Amino acid sequence: MSTLFKDVFILDGERKKAQRGHILVSKGRIQTIVASDMSKTPPAADKTIEGGGRMAVLPGFVNAHSHAAMVLLRGLGEELPLMEWLQKKIWPVEAKLTPEHIYWGSLSAILEMLATGTTCFTDMYFEMDGVAKAAVEAGIRAAVCRGIVAGPPVDGVPKIDRSIENNLALFERWHGREGLITVQLGPHAPYTVPFEDMKRVVGIAKERGMGIHFHFLETEFELGYIKNDLKMTPDKYLAETGILEVPGTTLAHGVWMDPEWGSTLDMSNVTIAHCPCSNMKLGSGVMPLDAWLDKKVGLAIGTDGASSNNRLDMWGEMRSAALLHKGITRNSASAPPLDILRMATFEGARAAGFAQKGLICEGWVADFVLVDLDQPHYVGVNEENLANYIVYSGSSADIKGTMVNGKWLYKDGAYPTVDKDEILRKARETREAILKN
Amino acid sequence: MSTLFKDVFILDGERKKAQRGHILVSKGRIQTIVASDMSKTPPAADKTIEGGGRMAVLPGFVNAHSHAAMVLLRGLGEELPLMEWLQKKIWPVEAKLTPEHIYWGSLSAILEMLATGTTCFTDMYFEMDGVAKAAVEAGIRAAVCRGIVAGPPVDGVPKIDRSIENNLALFERWHGREGLITVQLGPHAPYTVPFEDMKRVVGIAKERGMGIHFHFLETEFELGYIKNDLKMTPDKYLAETGILEVPGTTLAHGVWMDPEWGSTLDMSNVTIAHCPCSNMKLGSGVMPLDAWLDKKVGLAIGTDGASSNNRLDMWGEMRSAALLHKGITRNSASAPPLDILRMATFEGARAAGFAQKGLICEGWVADFVLVDLDQPHYVGVNEENLANYIVYSGSSADIKGTMVNGKWLYKDGAYPTVDKDEILRKARETREAILKN
Repeated sequence: MSTLFKDVFILDGERKKAQRGHILVSKGRIQTIVASDMSKTPPAADKTIEGGGRMAVLPGFVNAHSHAAMVLLRGLGEELPLMEWLQKKIWPVEAKLTPEHIYWGSLSAILEMLATGTTCFTDMYFEMDGVAKAAVEAGIRAAVCRGIVAGPPVDGVPKIDRSIENNLALFERWHGREGLITVQLGPHAPYTVPFEDMKRVVGIAKERGMGIHFHFLETEFELGYIKNDLKMTPDKYLAETGILEVPGTTLAHGVWMDPEWGSTLDMSNVTIAHCPCSNMKLGSGVMPLDAWLDKKVGLAIGTDGASSNNRLDMWGEMRSAALLHKGITRNSASAPPLDILRMATFEGARAAGFAQKGLICEGWVADFVLVDLDQPHYVGVNEENLANYIVYSGSSADIKGTMVNGKWLYKDGAYPTVDKDEILRKARETREAILKN
Repeated sequence: MSTLFKDVFILDGERKKAQRGHILVSKGRIQTIVASDMSKTPPAADKTIEGGGRMAVLPGFVNAHSHAAMVLLRGLGEELPLMEWLQKKIWPVEAKLTPEHIYWGSLSAILEMLATGTTCFTDMYFEMDGVAKAAVEAGIRAAVCRGIVAGPPVDGVPKIDRSIENNLALFERWHGREGLITVQLGPHAPYTVPFEDMKRVVGIAKERGMGIHFHFLETEFELGYIKNDLKMTPDKYLAETGILEVPGTTLAHGVWMDPEWGSTLDMSNVTIAHCPCSNMKLGSGVMPLDAWLDKKVGLAIGTDGASSNNRLDMWGEMRSAALLHKGITRNSASAPPLDILRMATFEGARAAGFAQKGLICEGWVADFVLVDLDQPHYVGVNEENLANYIVYSGSSADIKGTMVNGKWLYKDGAYPTVDKDEILRKARETREAILKN
């Protein structure tokens, strides 16, 4: 089955400006792009989306840091700071979550992500088989990892060993499945993984060629922890654990990372997953995006869990990032739209371990967001300014459809691959069950 | 024609929590609210909206500061700071705007506002007959004022006198029209209205019982201007112009106002219209909302013009405000959802000179936003937490309908009172015309 996107605006984070043209998709990939010359006959296809110059095709958004199943915990402990929120509200409820809960929670999160244009998400949590299964059933891409943490032994096995085993078993079962899933190692954070164990995880990553997904310096508390408890500076921590040598390392949040390290350390293997809304909501601080933009480091955008955002809407996250940094730096030229778009697509996909995803190129996968421009807030849009309109004026309300591998997963408000009503019913039941005392 | 909202969640900014119940609307007003006891038979009506416990009714949003017709200038001069942006990009194009341009631009803005839940907007611009006419035709409420500025004489009349005359004539023609329009005086800003003229405008406001809408301390530049050019402190400026004595005074932006003035001055007549997104986008700074929240002053929310936002989406503005202040103060308890909701509804309406608007009370006008809660991001919503879900998890994509005076102006994506296609066509033509050299 081939699909022609006829007379649409085509934009990704590498183009200086949008192009008007046609895109032919078949076998899940972009076969042909005919741009600029609208007088040429567009290629033939089984199905045609008539853009009429009033639709745009963007690469699907990539959520570079999430905990999908935490949609089940949305709104718990509002207004608490991070550590108190975790200890009092989140951890006690998480202790009750079963594999089935995680599965239904993930499907509910996937509904939300598809409706807001996300075609790939990076996810750290536990019982990750449920997340991977939900993703494959829905047809969305996911980079999954098991949160590796220290803790009391389970059946005589130290929790850190158990969670590493668990993460590696996940890799065996799911990595590469249907081209939709990658599995990374998920050491949780410097304060939950002992230093020697962290070095061990890094060693495993190097040995097996796995990426690493790691919370790093989300809060100021962690700065103090590394300094006082580990007796080192955070840049030394990065260097000494060896994590910088692992291709495909994502450092989530990085609020308190010093952009100077972009000059003093080799960070070319690293992507920082910026989570502006979660960081604002928890009062964790503001990651200094602009200072990082000219460093040799990957920069992506994530929502974090819905429990601290409280949305999983990458489009909203783009706008928040674009505005926040202008406000904070008082520089209206900061966080330019094309950089933001590239972060929210291509750089997230690369960090998640997916190749040829996140740009609109011939031969690359057809992971798209289809955008309706026939609306008042797009009056005046053209090739030159589309990126500005998307990031500043648009919102996920403008999404006509979300496609992965050339297949619609969300179209005109409906979900062709999953049963929305059943998922919402199960998600509501689950939430009731886990909040009951 | 009466309409029954059957089994909906009812929430406004004065309720500590939402109620589940029925609302009967007729003759444009809320006739009956039957709450809490769902076993009672709901009142009879000509039409029934079946909420089924999966819809919410909120008061319509009130945009407390806008320049609606600036949708025509959206995206011009992106990334410039305020003064440079005004002088190089905005003012030269504004000089070309005709009354008809303003009319079509306003209608296009109204489409956007209705789709995002706004039922009332406060607007300062010029050729304001076009704005008022557009509002009355669409059926939306508007508080309009003519931007009063000094400048070279027009036909021998000083520009300041001309614009005051113009504002007063607007009052005669439109104030109170169909209960939809109020007219205020619109002195533009301290740096565009000479001090003595400002005192004159205040005198006229007092004499005629008119409200005042005034840009005040949007940028740091203005602090310096008042200090160096007017040789006074800004609090002294407020006291000496007499503006604080005018009931119904809105100070737009107030980014650089000192919350201490809330203790040293009587600000009970004043509403500060907070515009978080525009202030971020132009790098103007961040208004210290939290410090104002416990002062005796009105606080409302506005989008500012679409040229510096670039949306007219009050729901997005609520979320941005709620997150931004948590991020800036690093206090996750700052800017609570109910305060934000009250700012975005009731307090904006009061500042605009409208009584009995902005809350859901028997006898008050039926200006509503109808919200679809049957979506993944509302799983877990209940009476206690609805305000959190609305402000943090929801977005204008959730809007089923927007009603003013008991009449649908936006319903399921359509506009019953205006011709969307015609308005977009005219708005596009207008934009092309004004951007042509």
